[in-house]
This record gives sequence, structure tokens and C-alpha cells, in this order.
Amino acid sequence: MPAYRAPLDDIRFVLHDVLGTEQLRALPGYEEVTPDLVDTVLDGMAQVCEEVLFPLNQVGDQVGSTVADGVVTTPPGFKEAYATFCEAGFPGLSCDPAYGGQGLPLTLRAVLDEMVCSTNLSFGMFPGLTYGAYEALHAYGSDELKDAYLAKLVSGEWAGTMCLTEPHAGTDLGIITTKAVPAGDGAYHVTGSKIFITAGEHDLTPNIVHLVLAKLPDAPPGTKGISLLLVPKYLPTEDGRPGTRNGVTCVGVEHKMGIKASPTCQLQFDNAKGWLVGEPHKGLRAMFIMMNGARLNVGMQGLGLSVTSYQNALQYAKDRLQMRALKGAARPDQPADPIIVHPDVRRGLMTMKSFNEGARALAYHVGMEMDVILHHPDPARRQEAEDLVALLTPVVKAFFTDVGFESANIGLQTYGGHGYIREYGMEQYVRDSRIAQIYEGTNGVQAMDLVGRKLPAEMGRLLRRFFQPTHELIERESQGDLKDLAEALGQGFRRLQQGTQLILAKGMRDPNEAGAAASEYLRIFGLVAVGAMWLRMARVAQDKLAAGAGPKEAFYRSKVVTAKFWMTRILPQAHGLMASIAAGGETIMALEPDAF
Amino acid sequence: MPAYRAPLDDIRFVLHDVLGTEQLRALPGYEEVTPDLVDTVLDGMAQVCEEVLFPLNQVGDQVGSTVADGVVTTPPGFKEAYATFCEAGFPGLSCDPAYGGQGLPLTLRAVLDEMVCSTNLSFGMFPGLTYGAYEALHAYGSDELKDAYLAKLVSGEWAGTMCLTEPHAGTDLGIITTKAVPAGDGAYHVTGSKIFITAGEHDLTPNIVHLVLAKLPDAPPGTKGISLLLVPKYLPTEDGRPGTRNGVTCVGVEHKMGIKASPTCQLQFDNAKGWLVGEPHKGLRAMFIMMNGARLNVGMQGLGLSVTSYQNALQYAKDRLQMRALKGAARPDQPADPIIVHPDVRRGLMTMKSFNEGARALAYHVGMEMDVILHHPDPARRQEAEDLVALLTPVVKAFFTDVGFESANIGLQTYGGHGYIREYGMEQYVRDSRIAQIYEGTNGVQAMDLVGRKLPAEMGRLLRRFFQPTHELIERESQGDLKDLAEALGQGFRRLQQGTQLILAKGMRDPNEAGAAASEYLRIFGLVAVGAMWLRMARVAQDKLAAGAGPKEAFYRSKVVTAKFWMTRILPQAHGLMASIAAGGETIMALEPDAF
Repeated sequence: MPAYRAPLDDIRFVLHDVLGTEQLRALPGYEEVTPDLVDTVLDGMAQVCEEVLFPLNQVGDQVGSTVADGVVTTPPGFKEAYATFCEAGFPGLSCDPAYGGQGLPLTLRAVLDEMVCSTNLSFGMFPGLTYGAYEALHAYGSDELKDAYLAKLVSGEWAGTMCLTEPHAGTDLGIITTKAVPAGDGAYHVTGSKIFITAGEHDLTPNIVHLVLAKLPDAPPGTKGISLLLVPKYLPTEDGRPGTRNGVTCVGVEHKMGIKASPTCQLQFDNAKGWLVGEPHKGLRAMFIMMNGARLNVGMQGLGLSVTSYQNALQYAKDRLQMRALKGAARPDQPADPIIVHPDVRRGLMTMKSFNEGARALAYHVGMEMDVILHHPDPARRQEAEDLVALLTPVVKAFFTDVGFESANIGLQTYGGHGYIREYGMEQYVRDSRIAQIYEGTNGVQAMDLVGRKLPAEMGRLLRRFFQPTHELIERESQGDLKDLAEALGQGFRRLQQGTQLILAKGMRDPNEAGAAASEYLRIFGLVAVGAMWLRMARVAQDKLAAGAGPKEAFYRSKVVTAKFWMTRILPQAHGLMASIAAGGETIMALEPDAF
Repeated sequence: MPAYRAPLDDIRFVLHDVLGTEQLRALPGYEEVTPDLVDTVLDGMAQVCEEVLFPLNQVGDQVGSTVADGVVTTPPGFKEAYATFCEAGFPGLSCDPAYGGQGLPLTLRAVLDEMVCSTNLSFGMFPGLTYGAYEALHAYGSDELKDAYLAKLVSGEWAGTMCLTEPHAGTDLGIITTKAVPAGDGAYHVTGSKIFITAGEHDLTPNIVHLVLAKLPDAPPGTKGISLLLVPKYLPTEDGRPGTRNGVTCVGVEHKMGIKASPTCQLQFDNAKGWLVGEPHKGLRAMFIMMNGARLNVGMQGLGLSVTSYQNALQYAKDRLQMRALKGAARPDQPADPIIVHPDVRRGLMTMKSFNEGARALAYHVGMEMDVILHHPDPARRQEAEDLVALLTPVVKAFFTDVGFESANIGLQTYGGHGYIREYGMEQYVRDSRIAQIYEGTNGVQAMDLVGRKLPAEMGRLLRRFFQPTHELIERESQGDLKDLAEALGQGFRRLQQGTQLILAKGMRDPNEAGAAASEYLRIFGLVAVGAMWLRMARVAQDKLAAGAGPKEAFYRSKVVTAKFWMTRILPQAHGLMASIAAGGETIMALEPDAF
């Protein structure tokens, strides 16, 4: 049976020592966010995730959510766990206090996301989608809609969904056919088929609030004619209870590779009553509010599952006795040595560890920038943060989920044959993490977002928000005790700069050249971005060691070693990736479809 | 619903045009292997695999093999398919005619393996293990055992297994505890628990022949004291029918991530009657006969599943309409363009295609060398082939299964959200292919075999069997119309040489340095080995084009483009891998287990 302990030491290291919780507290609105408060909140999250969510993860996979006659039943224990989750106030952790939210930093929400994804990804989908609905409604909803729905979403009493995809329209939302026809009373009648709707129907809450993309009768064609509508499962009564059943039905639940406890629904809307969120035809803007948050959350899924896979692989590597160390028996008292003595096993563990800790630091860094966007008094600083978050969103989504999947596979591999057996739990992490590379925009779409939108945006301003501080960081560390690390990061960074120039130059002439380079470029970006966080973490750790770290010496030494591992054993992938980009798109575009 | 067509054009290109079927025919014993015969055999294989095995692949996954009271039931249709497979003579395709085999080349067996793995991996496990038992028994069995069992295994009337692993002993066979005690009549009583026994119990055949690793009472400790015993499920009667039930019971079938139709059994041996195969305590030698063949076969699993995943991803990419081509609509008559217009989708398809065709060529090349080992009149040529096959076995096993898994994942990704849905079939290929990285020695173990055994063996003689012809190939092509490809291959080859030198030099001082480099080194090896086959294929294709290829022009042009793709977009991974190796093992070995 797998186990999970929230990596609180590592999390606190990033929050308090590397990023600095005092940065949060300095933001207007977060005055009460003391280090003590942060630690208390972390402890509460850890407890619920370890003791309530994680024990349901395997049963959730084995039983799954099922549908019969349009009614979806979640696995045993999910209802009770959801109640506990809501009682703890987690759905509204970072939500607006005006609607009952706790108003805590988004940085802490990122931590919660990590822990939830580590312990029960399927469970996390329910409040995750609800939060997305909250965000869109909070940003674009009319006062009437906000008053009627927001408090219910913040408390978790009602759940939310995002209804985008149709059978013929996934990435390509411009060709959706769901219609919204004015009902005459300010409301609309929504009709159409949606698929892949996460938590589209379930028994955790008495009502579900669907946010649905649809076309109004006078909609211009393509993405410029998409509207966002709020369609509740039950129309609320005057006093806020679920009233009349609305015309939306679950007609099926997909059989999936993983996240089986999360019901992925086919929904049929038949003249369902709905209300516009935001302006007509401008639904994509509101949708992207949800989508950007969701993309960062999906990145956390890659990280979260990698963390659990790592913890269990590590324990297995310490326990499993097999063969002898290459330089002679490490445990001559035993019939064989624990497999953690073997270099190739260690290589796998270090790969996971260096990704987990580096990606976590980057994710929380992004979280903190999101708090800056919300609360910083200086508009220039807010813009800076907004640029950086926009730039890094596709990187976090795609890089974290690609490497998270690889990492979950390393964890499985560490177990040998036992990794392939259901009861050990490791193969579930692989199956569950696989979806994260696909939904909320496939990782290929993320790469196109990065090179096609984010790179050229504002004459490269977004890019400079990352390049400038990274350059300064490398410069700053290029002389002292971390100069080897800075030099290694610098090499990777130069590859990233070369790739950028190449894409901008070639892509200007031929957009297919940018497209052919996009995925490999995004991966270089992720390698360097995580590398930059490692250099910052190594700096903090070295300073702690220099100051005398006492009982935490091994902890900080481990940080420095792991930073070096990332820089010298993982980051060099950038060399090969850059060589591949430099070869251009000719061989990719050459063949006619029938010549494949 | 997924589809599969045996890629006969590609297969014939490799067999007839690149490797040369006449090379086979020149070997004593293969005089009748004309190109026409080869084509007829290929057609027969394709028919059974397409029409009988493939239609059972999804139902096999969904129903699985199940156990009740020690009786294992295979999925519906498997019994009939197995009968058809045996009637076609496939179990004995390359077996000794003295025992009813067809005596056809092992090269053709490699083709059969590919097609079977492409269409129904779980099904393929049954005859696959039977063939392993045949090989060991043919090489090391006494005349009595051979007379009693070989014909039954060759015809497929009885099935075989390899019983190696025990709960505490997987990679580490030296610590097995299964005992074999002399019964006094030349037989032994075998007692112990075995796990992960593929096809350990099932309903396809009336008898099962287990080859079991066990320790005799006077066994020296470790791997020097392991014997191989033949233990039939039913003791054969005088006239060769299954007689008395032997003391071996299936006490469980694993719940696995994939290959669910293949029953992975826990077997309990209780004083089961068995007979020695080969000499006492020298069972590992016979076991490695099975194991080496099995490792190559597992490599084919990675390739085979990648082929099917590719075929379906390609079809989906041609059919699925989503978004517009970056340079303007390719199909303005449709609401969107087929996704094959998008560079990142093409990049995925080309990655799969270039692996499939290159790996196939390498696999058949190895198959042909195995035929040389069996039949060539010149002992020096036989030794050369034996060296090369020994060297390439871990590369084929690990590289093909690692990249095969990556490729199956690209196929899934091409489908977007639909790839994650069971009914589309793509996620099954991912789950099924995942085991191939683990069994018959994990890929980490393969890497250690390569750097620890094969590299230093015979003062580097094995290595020279690959390096010398590769060097000559690059030299030969370095001036003409393929000089760009030769130059690119040369760059990868130099990385491989650097890695070799580094491992030999550093590994001499510290074996952990070799261990820390092993997996990345093996991957470089695979990249270069497949690259060398691509250069050979490009040469043939160019010559065909120069001579006027007529209706096959697009086919040969595609080969040249795909060769260039491999050399310039895939092979450059070697740069990053070599940089990682060069960084050494320090950061991998640094941490104490508790500091992870």
C-alpha cells in the first residue's frame, strides 16, 4: 500500500526561505499572513490530504464514478471526504471574503493544489472545476448572478463545471454548435451536446453550476462569436435552494485510462435555462480566466503525482533487497543490499527529486506573482507579474505534466515488476498523470501558445520578464561558491536564447518553422526555468550552511547536491533539444499525408 | 475502433532490398527460402494477425484472464485463435524440423514477433514463452526429455513457461529458495513459490511445461548454484497424453496495468515432479538461452505496439478536423483542416515513423545475424554474429521498449482527449507497452549488462563488431549524395565513442561511474544503431530513385526524408545525453539514503 506525507519541510523552505513569506505579508490585504499563520494553514491542509483524501485514492480508482439513468455515483467515501474538505474551508481558501472566502494568498492555494493532486487527483477535480467557475463568475458575472451563486461555490455547497468541448470541437472552439437563444426574460435557452465535462454530474452536491460556451443567434463565425452562459442543474429558488430541474442531462460517463473517480460526462443541454456571463460573443475572454488558472492547476497535477510516486519509490528503494552494491556489499548482514545502492536506481530517484523540488519552487513563485497581480499597489509591478505569469503558464502546464508523467514512470520502474501490479499503487499515478498532458489544451497547444502568442507579445516584453532576472541571477552567482552551477545554468540559458532567436527569425518567414520547434523549445524553457529556481535555492542553502545549519545541515546539503544534479545531469538535455530545433522543420513538413 | 494492417511494403523493403533475402538463402539449410517463399509466409502471417489476433485485442483487455479455484480462463475467442495460430504452424515456424518445426529463418520469426506484438501482445505471450521453453530444452535437454516434450511445444499442442522470479528474488536470482530434491529415480521433487509467471496456468492447452529455476540440496550459494528443471503440469503418459496431475498450482493471478489477457500467475510447487535440464547448478546457462531470445522478443513488443499506435494516430490525424494550417486553410471546403497539417502533430508522427522503420531494420538485421549463428559454415563469421547479437541484445530490449513506450504515448497524444478513452484503443497500447521496460530484466539491468559485461568483454571485441562497420558505413557515405546524413550520423557516433571511452576509463577506477552513465549510454547506442540502419536504408532508397522508381517513387522519397528526420531531429538527443554522462556520477552517489 502506498503512503504519502506532505513534504512540509521542503514546502516551508520554498515559502519562507527562498521566496520569503514576508513578500506576501507586504501586500495590502495579506497583512495577517504571518509565517505562523502560513504554517498553521499548511498543517491543516496536510492533515486533510494525508488522512482523508489519500486513503480514498486507490478505492476511487478501482470503483470509479459510475452512471445509471443519468445519475452519477461517486466512489464510497467521496461524499464524506468532500464534506470534510468544505468544512475546512478549502474550496474558498483564496476566494473573496465578500462571498465567504478566506481571502488567503493564491500562493497557499498552489500549495493546497499540490497536496490534493498528490493524494487524490480525481477528488481534486471537483473543487478544482468549482474554483474555475468561481473565477469566471467573480470576474465577469452580473451582480445578480454573483449574489445568487458565488457564496455557494465558495463554500463548496454547490459545485461548478466548464462546458467547452463538443464531439467535433476540442482545441478548435470556434466551430462549436451549442446554441443559446434569448428566452425573452433576459435569460437564454441553451441546446447542444458537450463532452469531456469533468464533474458534469455527481452526487457530492445538491446543485451543479455549469459554465457553458455557446453561440447566440447573431454570433459572428469563429472564436469571435462565442458566449459564456451560466446554466444551473437546478434553478435556484428565491431563498437559494435548488428548485426546478433544468434541461441538462448526463447521457454518459467515459471509460478512461485513469482519474476514474472523476466522472467525465457527456452532457445534453435541451432548452436549458441559462444566463450570460459577461458580454455577448465575448465568452472566450471569461473562459480564459478559468482556463489560465486551470492550466496552472494542471501543471500542479504533474508535480503532485510525481511527489507521491517519488516518496513511495524512495521507500521501496530503501526496503527492497536485491543484488550487491558495485563496490562490495553495503549490508553484508542481509542476503542482498537495498536497491538504493545501485547508481541507476539513484539516478531515477534524483531525477524525480530534482524535478519535484525545483518545479515546486517555480510553481509557488508563479503563485506569488499571481498574488502580486491581485494585490500589489504599483501598477507597473502588477503588469510585470501579469506578463511573467502569462509567459510561464504554458511552460508550467506542459513541462510539469510531461516531466511529471516521466517521473511517475520512473517511480513505477523503481518497483520493477511490482510497479506494474495494481495493488502497489504506482501504476495508478502513471495512468492518472497521463491526462494532464492532454486536457486544458494539449501540451502541443501549450507550446504553440508559447511560441505563437507569448514570445512575440508586446515586442518581447513578456519574455524579458523572465530573461532579465535570469540573466542577472546567473551574473550574480558567476563568481562565488556556486559559480559551477551558474556556469551550467548559463549554458542552458544560452540554448534558450538561441532557440528564441531562431524561432523569431525563422518563424517570421514561415510559421511552420516556429511550430516545428515549439515543443522542444518549451522543454528547454522549462529546464532553464526550474534551473533558475535551483540556483536560487542553492544560494539560500549555501548561506544557511555557511551560517551553521545545525540539525538541518543534511537538509541544506541535499539541496545543493540536488541543484547540481539538475544543472549537470538534467539541464544538458537542452543541448540535444537545441540541436534538434536548429535542424529546422523541413523534414517535418516534407511529406504529403499519403506518403507517411 | 483501432485498425491494423501489416506494413508489408516496409517489411519487404527491409528484407529484400536492404538486408537481402539472398543472404539468408545462401545459408546451408535455407536453400529453399526464396523471395517468393518469404512473401508467401509474410502474407500468411499478416492474414492471421490482422484477422484473428487483432480483433481480440480490445476484448482481451476488457475481460482479461481470470482465476477461480486455480483454474485460469482466457478471454473469449483466445482458444479458437490459438488453434488457428497453431494450425498455421507459427509456434514452430523457426523450430527444428526433427521435431516437426518448419525450419524457417529466425529473421522471419522476428517478423512474426513484430506482427503478433502489433496485434495482440497478450496473446503473443503464450507462444512466446513456449518458444523460450523449446529453445532451452532443445539446447540442453536430455534425449528423453526432448523426445517427450519438444514436438508438443513445436506444434503448440502444449505450452511452456519460464519460472524464475520469487517474491524476494527478481533481478537477484542468486537468492531464490525454491528447492529440488532428488526423488531417487533420476527425477526431483520441486517445492517453492514462484511469482510473475506468464501463462503459468490457462485453458489454451491441455498441458503446460514449466521450466523452473531451483536449488539442489548440495547447491553452492548464489548464481553458481541454480539448476533448471522441467516440471509439467500433467506428467505425460507413455503415449504422450497428459496423465497424472503434478504438484503445481496457480494460487493467484495479478491485477496488472496492462497485458490483462496474459495471466501473470503465482505458482505454488509442492513436491512437484521434475527433471533436470542441463547439468546440476548450471541452470543459468540454459536460462540465458531463453532469456536472450526473450529479451529480443521484448524489444519487438516495444516496436510492435508503436507500429499499431502509429497507424491509428496517422489515420486520426488525417480524419480529425481541428483548427487551420498556420499558413492558411488547407481544406477551405471543410470547417477546419485535418490536424496532420499542424507541425507539432507531424513532429509526433515522424518521431513514431522514424523509430518504427529504423528499429524494424535493426531488429531484422539482428534476426539475420542469429540465422548466421545457426547456419553459417564459417566459424569466424558465426563468432562475429554471436558477438554482435550479444552486444545488441540489451540495446534492442531497452531502447526499443523505452522508445516504443514513448511512441505509444505520442500516438495517444495525437488523439487528444479521445486518446484517454478506452474505446479508442490508444491507451491500451500505452498500458500494454509499459511492461516491456520491466520484464526480462528491467531496462536499468540491460544498461548494466551493456556497460558492465558487453563493453569490456573479450577486450572490446564485441564492441568492435558494431563500431567497425558503422565507421566504414559513415566513411563510405561521407562524400556522395548522402553526405549530410553521414555527417549527422558521424556526430552521434562520436558521442557514442566518447561515452565508451569515458565509461571504460572512469568505470575502471569506480564501477559506480559506469553505473551512473549506463542508461544514458545505452540510449545513445540505440540512437546510433538505428541511425546506421537509416543510412543504409537511405542508400538503397536513393539508388532506387536514381534508377527510376516509377510508382514507388513516393515510397523511396519518404524513406530518405524519414532518414534525414531521424539524423537531424532525433539523433541529436545524443548531445544532451553525452553531456549528462560527462558530468559523472558524483551527484548521483552523494546523498546518504536518509538525505533523499
